[in-house]
This record gives sequence, structure tokens and C-alpha cells, in this order.
Amino acid sequence: MTTGVLGTGAVGRTIAAKLAELGHDVVMGTRVPAETLRRVVKEDGAGSQLDAWLAKRTRIKLGTFAEAATHGDLVWNATSGGKSLAVLGASRAASVGPRILVDVANPLDFSRGMPPTLLVKDTDSLGEQIQREYPSLRVVKALNTMNAAVMTDPSSVAGGAHTAFMCGNDAEAKAEVRAVLESFGWRDVIDLGDITASRGMEMILPIWLRLFGILKTPSFNFHIAR
Amino acid sequence: MTTGVLGTGAVGRTIAAKLAELGHDVVMGTRVPAETLRRVVKEDGAGSQLDAWLAKRTRIKLGTFAEAATHGDLVWNATSGGKSLAVLGASRAASVGPRILVDVANPLDFSRGMPPTLLVKDTDSLGEQIQREYPSLRVVKALNTMNAAVMTDPSSVAGGAHTAFMCGNDAEAKAEVRAVLESFGWRDVIDLGDITASRGMEMILPIWLRLFGILKTPSFNFHIAR
Repeated sequence: MTTGVLGTGAVGRTIAAKLAELGHDVVMGTRVPAETLRRVVKEDGAGSQLDAWLAKRTRIKLGTFAEAATHGDLVWNATSGGKSLAVLGASRAASVGPRILVDVANPLDFSRGMPPTLLVKDTDSLGEQIQREYPSLRVVKALNTMNAAVMTDPSSVAGGAHTAFMCGNDAEAKAEVRAVLESFGWRDVIDLGDITASRGMEMILPIWLRLFGILKTPSFNFHIAR
Repeated sequence: MTTGVLGTGAVGRTIAAKLAELGHDVVMGTRVPAETLRRVVKEDGAGSQLDAWLAKRTRIKLGTFAEAATHGDLVWNATSGGKSLAVLGASRAASVGPRILVDVANPLDFSRGMPPTLLVKDTDSLGEQIQREYPSLRVVKALNTMNAAVMTDPSSVAGGAHTAFMCGNDAEAKAEVRAVLESFGWRDVIDLGDITASRGMEMILPIWLRLFGILKTPSFNFHIAR
């Protein structure tokens, strides 16, 4: 299976690494690959650069946003939420056909200081904005409600007994994303319905951020007890 | 122990009934008690009125908002969130001294149709509005993130293995509220810090409402797996 990942930050790298580990061929997209290759990443020790990180993960290639968006049927939006629409424009997402876009981003606004607020909320959401602007994409909102390490390794928290939410307008796309989440180890995936459920999924961020401060670790997640 | 409950809807009645069962003397406050006594409630069968409901629960008296607010050191705000500030005004809350106000309300706006949106969010919250307007009250936000039946009977969901959040500026008030929650059966109470955490606690409502629709039962709750 081939997959594109938009974004080379911690979230994008974590997802790309997990997909590669599972045997996918991945293109990670960035604005200027030659510049991104020199960026220092934390995973492999102090001072390590992305080119060295990639050299150890041969199933992952670095490309432009457009190269990532056309690589495979499933593309992940792992950019920061405030830049996601611009990145999708740069990736020429309007012309990539009926690809599945897994939107894991949160529209956080850091311009007011900490904690961040939300750029869009309550009557709209980033997931909906993307779906409206790119109607040919099949947007599935997923995994935006937890830390990157938990996204790809749910068993690292409470033995995996917690919940991944998803939503989107296309049932087949959600079935494909569910299968990928299950391959990550997710056992409790709740389909919240159409893409408007992104509002609730994004508005959970403020309590997540508060819990992060209180628990002093990002290694936790919401579980829907029922 | 004596307690006041502002509001006679399902949330107010459920909390009052639980407190009475635990041996508290409770005054439930309403705008016009004589009118509220004739209101039909659902708990005791079709056509039952509140006066019959009260006759079976002798530790609960019905009074005005002001009578409830001055009854006991701990007062519950179980009014609908859009009316809470007006009710606190009617209850003369400014003159009731350093009482603990447990705010379980959500500032839901039904004027746009379903699902409701939030009247205040992200950079402010109902919990903060109440605390600002009534600085002598010691506001503790709690139990707004679940159905009324779950609030007072956590063991009814997954054996009680789920989370109650609370926040507020007064540590002593939070300790008293924690003790009451534990008397309800809560085992996992997370103190999220000062009253600004009300933002996140209230912004969880949209995903709660969506889950209610998907799960087709209000008998669920968030658990913080960690």
C-alpha cells in the first residue's frame, strides 16, 4: 500500500514511521524538501537531521506536498491546522481525484499565547472547511484527539483500552481508515457520522491541553465508558 | 448537611434526590414554587406532578431561588446554562456570602436549532462568568460532562470506571465538592485547576451530544485512560 503524508513535524513523522513499519511505501510532503532534509529532529538523538532519520527508514521518501498528495490513495493531513488549507492548495489537492484525506490536524491559534484557542469552532470546523474546499477529496477526521505517539501505538496507554473517534461523509472511506487504525492496534473506533462531527472532535482540544498540563504527560486518551 | 439546588428540571431533581438519599436536607429553588408544584415530572409515572414527587421525598423542600441559595453552605447550579446568570441574580447570590456553588450547567444555545451551539466558549465560559459576576461565591465546575443519571450513579456505567472533572479557584471548596462526589460513588475525580478549565469542560459538550446520538443512550461517560 502506498500513502502520502502532508507534514514533516512530529505527527507526520510518527505516522509515516508507523506506516513504513507496517510495510507501506510512504512519501512525506514538505514545502522545500532540500531545506527540510537539514532540519534537526529529536527522535534519533541530539543533533540528528531529517536526512539521517530518513536513511534509517528506507520505505519513506521525502517529496513536495504535491508529490505526497498524489502518492497512494490515502493521504494524511499532518500539518498544523492553521496552515492546512494553504498546504492543501500547495499540494494541488483539487486535482488529485477522489483520494481519502485523513485529517488529524487541529485548528489551533497560538497568536493569543498559551493555551491556544481554536481558529474555527462550534458552527464549523477544519474538517468541514477542507471537505468544502476540496469536494473531490473524501475527508475522514481521525486521531486528532490524542498525542502522536498514542495515535500509532494505542497499547502504550492503559493496554489500549481507549477510544479513537472518526467521522466523514463517505462510508467506504471510513471503512478503509478504520482498517488502517486497526492495523495500528485500535480496538475501539467510534464512527461519529458525517464530517460535521469534526466540530466536537476539534473542540475536545482545550480539555486535552488542560489534562496534558495536569497529568504532566501526553500519554493518556479519552475512553468512552459504556 | 444542608444543601440548596437551583433548578427543578431533571438535573436538579436527580441531584436533590441523591443528596436526600444520602441524608442531606435539601431546598430546591424555583422562580414561582406554587406553579412548579403542578409541573408534570416523568420519574414517578405518567401524569405525576412535582408535589406528589416531593411528598415521597420528605428531605426535599421546594422554595424560591433565594431560599435555596441561602440553604446550606453548598449550592448547586442545575439551571439551564442560558438562564444561570439570571437565576443567580434572582437568588440574590451576591449577598449569600462565601458559599460553594457547584456549577453543573452548560451554556447551550438552542436558538439555532439542533444540535445546540455554545453561548460562550474558547476564551470564556459560563463557570468563569459566574465566578466573575459573583466573586464572593466559591464556584466549582463539576459534573457538566455527563447525563444527570450518571452524575449521581457513576456505577451505572462500566462499573464506575470513568472520570469526573472539576475545577475552581478555591482549593478548600474543591476538597468539599470532591467529598460529595465520592459520596455519590465517584472514584476518579480529576482536578483540572482554576476556573478557566471550565472552557474545556463546557467545550466537550458537542462531542457528548454527538455520542448521545450515535450510541442512542445517555448512559456513557468519558474516562481518561492513563
